Amino acid sequence: MSKDLHISVLIDFYGELLTEKQRQALEFYYNEDLSLFEIAQHMNISRQGVRDFIKRGEKQLVDMENALGLAAKFGKLSARIDEMDNIIRHLSETELSAEAADEVLKLKKISCEIKENL
Amino acid sequence: MSKDLHISVLIDFYGELLTEKQRQALEFYYNEDLSLFEIAQHMNISRQGVRDFIKRGEKQLVDMENALGLAAKFGKLSARIDEMDNIIRHLSETELSAEAADEVLKLKKISCEIKENL
Repeated sequence: MSKDLHISVLIDFYGELLTEKQRQALEFYYNEDLSLFEIAQHMNISRQGVRDFIKRGEKQLVDMENALGLAAKFGKLSARIDEMDNIIRHLSETELSAEAADEVLKLKKISCEIKENL
Repeated sequence: MSKDLHISVLIDFYGELLTEKQRQALEFYYNEDLSLFEIAQHMNISRQGVRDFIKRGEKQLVDMENALGLAAKFGKLSARIDEMDNIIRHLSETELSAEAADEVLKLKKISCEIKENL
């Protein structure tokens, strides 16, 4: 079973729509990096049971992203925000009037807040 | 039956996870503003049938948003981008060095592209 790191992102987006057991198995596997054996012990089920929860959960997450594309949309947005953030940093290092410097400071603050909440 | 305009936003976000009939009824009702009678004719079902598809579809959309909160997250983000956009516009009207003006132009371009894709 190979680990697709993209799944970790999809758990954040759509995990709450999975069944409790599927989400639990996926979180142990992707976010806490436990082995199938360890997850089986935690959840008190067989390793095959864990494997099934993970496989079905993964499929549902991928199906949801294929239908909605919200993780991809957020990802692109996040990359554009990073670009803006770099430009704002560069801008703040140029010679600016007091008025302009004040506006750049506001931009810096908002871009920082956006990045914290993405 | 009262129209909750927020539903229109939720159709954009999660509509693809509804059944075909639910999505169709909701789109006719919220996006094309047809009456229950007109939708019933289009879909070749009873008005009560239309009402049921709409009610169940609405409930599912609201449940998904309560679980995932992605429409709210995008909404907040969109408001912050608007704030940045206003500041960038104001900034571009201040006295700027050629170097700074160049960076502000880049910011304007990206913020405009982000808004087009939100």
